[in-house]
Amino acid sequence: MTELIQPRVLKGFRDYPPELMIPRERLLETARRVYRSYGYAPIDTPALEFTEVLLGKGGAETDRQLFRFKHHDDDVALRFDLTVPFARFSATHVPKLGTPFKRYHLGPVWRGERPQKGRYREFWQCDFDTIGTTANAADIETALVIHDLMVGLGLEQFTHAEKAANRLKRFEIRINNRLVLNGLLEVMGAAEKSAPVLRTLDKLPKIGAEKVAVEMQAEAGVSADQARRIIALAGLTGGNDEILDQVERDFGGNAKVAEGVARLRELLAVSARAGAAPGRIVIDLSICRGLDYYTGMIYETFLVGSYADDESGEVKQLESFGSVCSGGRYDNLASLYTKQVLPGVGASLGLDRLLAAMEELGMLPKVATPAPVFVVQFEASRLGDYQRVARLLRAAGIGAEVYPDAKKIGQQLAYADKRGFKLALIAGPDDFAKNQWIIKDLAAQSQEAVPQSELKDAVEKRLR
Amino acid sequence: MTELIQPRVLKGFRDYPPELMIPRERLLETARRVYRSYGYAPIDTPALEFTEVLLGKGGAETDRQLFRFKHHDDDVALRFDLTVPFARFSATHVPKLGTPFKRYHLGPVWRGERPQKGRYREFWQCDFDTIGTTANAADIETALVIHDLMVGLGLEQFTHAEKAANRLKRFEIRINNRLVLNGLLEVMGAAEKSAPVLRTLDKLPKIGAEKVAVEMQAEAGVSADQARRIIALAGLTGGNDEILDQVERDFGGNAKVAEGVARLRELLAVSARAGAAPGRIVIDLSICRGLDYYTGMIYETFLVGSYADDESGEVKQLESFGSVCSGGRYDNLASLYTKQVLPGVGASLGLDRLLAAMEELGMLPKVATPAPVFVVQFEASRLGDYQRVARLLRAAGIGAEVYPDAKKIGQQLAYADKRGFKLALIAGPDDFAKNQWIIKDLAAQSQEAVPQSELKDAVEKRLR
Repeated sequence: MTELIQPRVLKGFRDYPPELMIPRERLLETARRVYRSYGYAPIDTPALEFTEVLLGKGGAETDRQLFRFKHHDDDVALRFDLTVPFARFSATHVPKLGTPFKRYHLGPVWRGERPQKGRYREFWQCDFDTIGTTANAADIETALVIHDLMVGLGLEQFTHAEKAANRLKRFEIRINNRLVLNGLLEVMGAAEKSAPVLRTLDKLPKIGAEKVAVEMQAEAGVSADQARRIIALAGLTGGNDEILDQVERDFGGNAKVAEGVARLRELLAVSARAGAAPGRIVIDLSICRGLDYYTGMIYETFLVGSYADDESGEVKQLESFGSVCSGGRYDNLASLYTKQVLPGVGASLGLDRLLAAMEELGMLPKVATPAPVFVVQFEASRLGDYQRVARLLRAAGIGAEVYPDAKKIGQQLAYADKRGFKLALIAGPDDFAKNQWIIKDLAAQSQEAVPQSELKDAVEKRLR
Repeated sequence: MTELIQPRVLKGFRDYPPELMIPRERLLETARRVYRSYGYAPIDTPALEFTEVLLGKGGAETDRQLFRFKHHDDDVALRFDLTVPFARFSATHVPKLGTPFKRYHLGPVWRGERPQKGRYREFWQCDFDTIGTTANAADIETALVIHDLMVGLGLEQFTHAEKAANRLKRFEIRINNRLVLNGLLEVMGAAEKSAPVLRTLDKLPKIGAEKVAVEMQAEAGVSADQARRIIALAGLTGGNDEILDQVERDFGGNAKVAEGVARLRELLAVSARAGAAPGRIVIDLSICRGLDYYTGMIYETFLVGSYADDESGEVKQLESFGSVCSGGRYDNLASLYTKQVLPGVGASLGLDRLLAAMEELGMLPKVATPAPVFVVQFEASRLGDYQRVARLLRAAGIGAEVYPDAKKIGQQLAYADKRGFKLALIAGPDDFAKNQWIIKDLAAQSQEAVPQSELKDAVEKRLR
């Protein structure tokens, strides 16, 4: 006998067994459904690309930690995000497809970073973008997509009250527009310091205003007074209108500030008119997403409210999961590959963060089956009838599994229970004689006989 | 200005722009829906694995042409199929999950083969399997899943008559059971020659009976008479019952043959009782899927009927696309990694073949948008109303895209036409005054005014 091979996976990689994969697929399907409903079209690109395409000519490997290797004579690597492949894709396909072009792309990416708790070397990104237009309508739509995505995932109303430390739980899309800060810097004669200012300002939630002020002076070369004014702007609180009114009052004479404020105001007004839930989109001038890449609207999405930690019982803030959907507007997507200028706006759903938060909130049922109904194989000779009734349910959109062996009923029900089925259907000789089925509620441990003709409706009712 | 990077993709790889990706996603979603409806649960595994895990210890690279490389000190490779990762996965997870275990797995695999027309180095597999049981019920269910998958994809009735050279078009699941041939070999005292016999028999459709007979004698060492009898068995024609009756008459005394015939008969009877469409499952003793791997039931699925080739006008047979869903029963999935014996049965949907066939039949609408409704941005100041009506449709499951700029209507409609939207909604000042919308059918070039209150129903009706 040959020696067994240890069935190990690479460090930083993981399997997804059903209880992890079922909620992931549910999230991915909600994302696809919402993206499509707005007319974003799916695309896919290869997992492997030329390293030159991913990093730029002579590009340093930066801190991407590529999975990079030689294949025959080609220097190739696994993609580390979906943005660079989208840029490369756009250079080739957009001339034919035309603009505006709206696409979504869901898929795995790979980074050889040191694995940490909750961070893997292989993970999925779920991006959507509109390119080829500078219209604020696209920025507004981006916020609406995030809004509908969160509502579609059940994050508008947190119904799992038993897990709730309080009832104030909801999502909040925080928006800002880089034009506001850039306008302020222009007013202060420090326009060219935008990048380092943003990088330090991004640390505000982590290290606080005082340290940011010190770092900003050191790293961006602004004065103490300038740092104070920047931090004061970022720290403005109040209702959306209050904040925007104040910015306009203080700096509205600057064209950039005026445009930023106008775009923010239009986003709020159109979203409200379009039917977005009140209070879900809020102005937050402190968000800046450190990246130099963004040039206009910026989005971050938080779950807000508190919850009781499963292990410690401690009350924690949902915000600590971080932004679950982030993005922004950029000036030019694909300048590395084409002369066609492609401004755009988009965002990315943080699948793993969202799953972690939803799990913590008890929103993910722990099941190992995607089907709610289990059909017991009571008599082997009746297999055709069991599959017949299962197909009847399947045709009505209700998943139904027939056990493959006519084992003892107790054994079959133990299997059904372990997998997480909700209902079991049982029919033996007596039931066939009476033309009836026994519906057993596996959680409630109750059961009831139902005529064959009423079975589908009875099952539907119990699954509601 | 820096030099542009050529936006090329690796040889044998390809992008999926919307018009390719939209039908792919539709197929993948149908597969997920049908697999789930039977209780198969989704899993996923890493794209990268230890080479040792993929190939076995000291395993030759065979002709897999792995994408293999060193990452730090690890010898790693991209998975070349989903079966080996499933075996590795099962060794780890099945002890905890229990059996029977039903899983599906959709995902990309990579092979460095020489690229050919229609064959790529990166392609998707769509597998489903039941492991941990030898019950024929699992074999039967496998056929039912394939049946429901084909029906779900619209391959039961070919409604695109304009593309049809004749009307006899349907899918056919061809089944065989290795036990029948193995029993015959046993009867002939040639049981140990099973593998080379199967390998040569597999060439029957390509090279014909005479050449197979010659090869079989040369390669499997059977006599001319034995080869003749094997080929005669494989070539039996007639109705399902006729074929099985004849096999039983001739070789039913052999226990293996008897069991093979019994399992085939039960599959036919249970499928019929369960409501499978008549004539869709047919016995074909010639199919053998060359692989040594399979030990019992075998499945191949063909589209049958003819069609007129787009370019040449020539009448071609749909069968030439090859089997679009194939599989079988095996004795032990994961013997490389665990001592737990895991017999199973499953099949794999041939996504690319099926897409090619459906495209040839004109079953894939050529659109670059997943949304059917286009909303013209007539007046920028009404953007909130346009998004409001679009969200009304989205809430009813109808995708609707709002154009981001208030450009000339002709320009907007040209965009909508190019993308493949079905309906355009238009409302200018007069329409808002009358509280109505213009619905424009983009294909028929007809239009109609509809009161706001009836809009959703009117759109739904036109999309039916």
